[in-house]
Amino acid sequence: MSMSSAPTAPVSSTDRIRNREFRKKIVSAEEAVRHIHRGDTVAISGFASAGTPKAVTCALAERIRAARAAGDEFAVDLLTGASVSADTERLLAETDGIALRMPYQAEPTARARINDGRIDYVDIHLSHVAQQVWEGCYGNVDVAVVEVAGITESGELIPATSVGNSKTWLDVAEKIILEVNSWIPEGLAGGHDIYYGTALPPHRTPILLTDVDDRIGQPFFRVDPERVVAVVETESPDTTAKLTPQDATSDAIATHVLDFFRHEVQAGRLPADTLLPLQSGIGNVANAVLAGLSSGPYRGLTCYSEVIQDGMLQLIDDGTVRFASSTAFALSAEGLDKLVRNIDFYREHILLRPQEISNHPEIVRRLGVIAMNGMLEADIYGNVNSTHVMGTRMMNGIGGSGDFARNGYLSMFLSPSTARNGAISSIVPMVPHIDHTEHDVQILVTEQGLADLRGLAPRRRSRVVIEKCAHPDYRAELTDYVERAEATEGAGHTPHLLGEAFGFHQRFQQTGTMHAR
Amino acid sequence: MSMSSAPTAPVSSTDRIRNREFRKKIVSAEEAVRHIHRGDTVAISGFASAGTPKAVTCALAERIRAARAAGDEFAVDLLTGASVSADTERLLAETDGIALRMPYQAEPTARARINDGRIDYVDIHLSHVAQQVWEGCYGNVDVAVVEVAGITESGELIPATSVGNSKTWLDVAEKIILEVNSWIPEGLAGGHDIYYGTALPPHRTPILLTDVDDRIGQPFFRVDPERVVAVVETESPDTTAKLTPQDATSDAIATHVLDFFRHEVQAGRLPADTLLPLQSGIGNVANAVLAGLSSGPYRGLTCYSEVIQDGMLQLIDDGTVRFASSTAFALSAEGLDKLVRNIDFYREHILLRPQEISNHPEIVRRLGVIAMNGMLEADIYGNVNSTHVMGTRMMNGIGGSGDFARNGYLSMFLSPSTARNGAISSIVPMVPHIDHTEHDVQILVTEQGLADLRGLAPRRRSRVVIEKCAHPDYRAELTDYVERAEATEGAGHTPHLLGEAFGFHQRFQQTGTMHAR
Repeated sequence: MSMSSAPTAPVSSTDRIRNREFRKKIVSAEEAVRHIHRGDTVAISGFASAGTPKAVTCALAERIRAARAAGDEFAVDLLTGASVSADTERLLAETDGIALRMPYQAEPTARARINDGRIDYVDIHLSHVAQQVWEGCYGNVDVAVVEVAGITESGELIPATSVGNSKTWLDVAEKIILEVNSWIPEGLAGGHDIYYGTALPPHRTPILLTDVDDRIGQPFFRVDPERVVAVVETESPDTTAKLTPQDATSDAIATHVLDFFRHEVQAGRLPADTLLPLQSGIGNVANAVLAGLSSGPYRGLTCYSEVIQDGMLQLIDDGTVRFASSTAFALSAEGLDKLVRNIDFYREHILLRPQEISNHPEIVRRLGVIAMNGMLEADIYGNVNSTHVMGTRMMNGIGGSGDFARNGYLSMFLSPSTARNGAISSIVPMVPHIDHTEHDVQILVTEQGLADLRGLAPRRRSRVVIEKCAHPDYRAELTDYVERAEATEGAGHTPHLLGEAFGFHQRFQQTGTMHAR
Repeated sequence: MSMSSAPTAPVSSTDRIRNREFRKKIVSAEEAVRHIHRGDTVAISGFASAGTPKAVTCALAERIRAARAAGDEFAVDLLTGASVSADTERLLAETDGIALRMPYQAEPTARARINDGRIDYVDIHLSHVAQQVWEGCYGNVDVAVVEVAGITESGELIPATSVGNSKTWLDVAEKIILEVNSWIPEGLAGGHDIYYGTALPPHRTPILLTDVDDRIGQPFFRVDPERVVAVVETESPDTTAKLTPQDATSDAIATHVLDFFRHEVQAGRLPADTLLPLQSGIGNVANAVLAGLSSGPYRGLTCYSEVIQDGMLQLIDDGTVRFASSTAFALSAEGLDKLVRNIDFYREHILLRPQEISNHPEIVRRLGVIAMNGMLEADIYGNVNSTHVMGTRMMNGIGGSGDFARNGYLSMFLSPSTARNGAISSIVPMVPHIDHTEHDVQILVTEQGLADLRGLAPRRRSRVVIEKCAHPDYRAELTDYVERAEATEGAGHTPHLLGEAFGFHQRFQQTGTMHAR
């Protein structure tokens, strides 16, 4: 993101704004943010960085900073799709003018303020955001700031590199500021499927999507021009993710996952060539699994996920993946460049949807999604902590992991068995925060192995988790914990020693390592 | 249940078996259970007692008992809809021949063996049972034992007073034993909606149910006559629940719930006359809420729930409830008598569905169900423990609470603020077992008040939960815990003191009360 690349011309410098009424509303970002007031709820576009407004968010940060410097307690509530560009997140958090943040972030400055209690952070399932905002759980949305690729002659909006919650923001906001970003390749138009069939109950009807490539909506956003108070022009690329090289641990995790798929195909529980639609989180492990798929026997796989990562483009190139549905791109600079250069090809294999559809429980259940998400830690009975380091400090948020794990066909959680050079075990007696309960966790995978918990009672689960997933350095202590818990009078269905359940975490807090000396 | 009322005539003594081929298969229960072998997986009908097979289960218990007495390690895996008749559960558990039990129970003998680790108990969402068994997570189902009200001329089965998983058991079992119970009122025929449209992915299609009274299936079960190995005749009433008198605590909880509904209607978040389809668990609190509804301004309410309790019949009588969809009756003797006497009236207002439909995430989400479920305890941040007393000892199971809470429109959990004459606080610093995470819990209610957690960050949630829901005797200590947790260095997003988080529970274990002395 670059301030300098945010032109503020009063007359359009590109042909992206084809509707005359909208052209009349072109202003600078600084002028646009005058529509945002102290105490407003501001909803911005952006999901996994892609589609974050570039100019208006910077101008908003400056407006908040200046107001607060002048003694005005200017603050806003900030709603997004998921994470937004790290620069934007940081700039806004640094103002100390974000009162409430929802639903997801992944940036150190914001994270620090959340953990200091200086930002109220509400960590909810990404599929719930649209309905909860619509219902009014967050009050009125005063201003929406939405990046788009262009405005059509008839006044419809061509979506950007993410859809996220933009459809909902445009529907519910009292005032709308549009950022028209001419960097976005024009060929992206048509690569979105914006569904206008959702409603609040009792007016809901079935969502008739039965395959990942079904189009059930329209390519463009609708918008009420009366509520559009400003149009800002930019030409500014999305922030990109750094590609980290594959590592042996991620490769080992991927191998276990791929072995499991083979095993399930042999058992007749998964279709042989195509498996079922895959969902995978962001990061090294997910990329390693994707990379591994291309050397397998699969052809014509599908994905029903939140984001398109670099690995996905490769799988589409070689035919391993037939179609990928998501709500945003999450690419490296190289990946983004490849996408832009080959947009006409990829548009035939990729569709971006609103996140209420990409993560919708109805669709996730129907398609039978194979949910693969990362985790911070799991306990011996299969409860998963995705969010809170040592049970108290927020990392990023639950994101969409619960949407997929709760309603998917297979619910898998993946992590290296240790962190911080072995000082932290990802398998612990009891997790001090639970985002996914034992009822929603079927498969745990570390580089050590894969624990299939389906159909197992807790006392069997603990044995399998320790044997298959725990790092050897921690197995003896975990086994000792289980054996002593089971040996207590009235041990119960899920034996625990409440006084020691967080022993690993407390030791880490005291000594900097979970290792017993 | 009464052994003496289980006739074993080789020729039909009633007109309930109208198909000749099935009449040929009539045998005694003792003969029928010879089809069940050591190591078999046995799936039986029954949900909340209703529809439990009466004769074959007794004969099976006797077969297991005799075999084990003779030194044979005869054991079976037992799958059901949910809880079954307590007598049946107890008889089977007492044999020590139940190796695995799934998915729900509510009986002391079985519970004790589960907590001793002598029965492998798998506690899963009731909506997941059908798909997981179908998928093969529990191996083959060797024998299904299904109670029905009759067999039609064409060989279809008239369901009993519960549907539960019977459709699935009939579909997947290698051998089928039918119990035809002539006690079941003939007028119940037509009061069921058996949907045959579910499939394993990738073959799933939308389930086109958009109102609670929609019929999307057929009134009778299909069955492959080749797999029916025995038909047993009985004339034996369902076990009934005891009605406990309403108490002030339940009434107070109900009052808070009803005030909340009024508040939500005023805020425009719920339709005024009809609210949204209600789901409520079993027991005093649920009955008090139902009773309270009839004195409210509501007409034509609907219910989309698991069970029909006595209070529901009353609401249907007086027009407060227009229609109730469920999977089973859970009535007192008086309620059952009333149902039987007025079956033609109630059949117009009640429909029983398979539990994969009554609890289906797709439908629960679409209808916008208001989920009201009991809990053992909640913590100050809104995590709920529904199953494990003191974190280790299984009470009953998660049942359908997660199906409704996870995908419903409003997710409410209700409980008295204390148990055991005040020795146990239902609001604790941290629950030692989580069935419903902070992400899925919106509203907590005790007789003290109602905590609306929607849109609140954890540090705000803790204040609201303590102030609104905790018993005054425990408020000071809970507040002290929160304040000290927040005051620690790096307190984090969700402040906790890991060394004290289970202090309430440990004190109870040591002293028999959570009260500090």
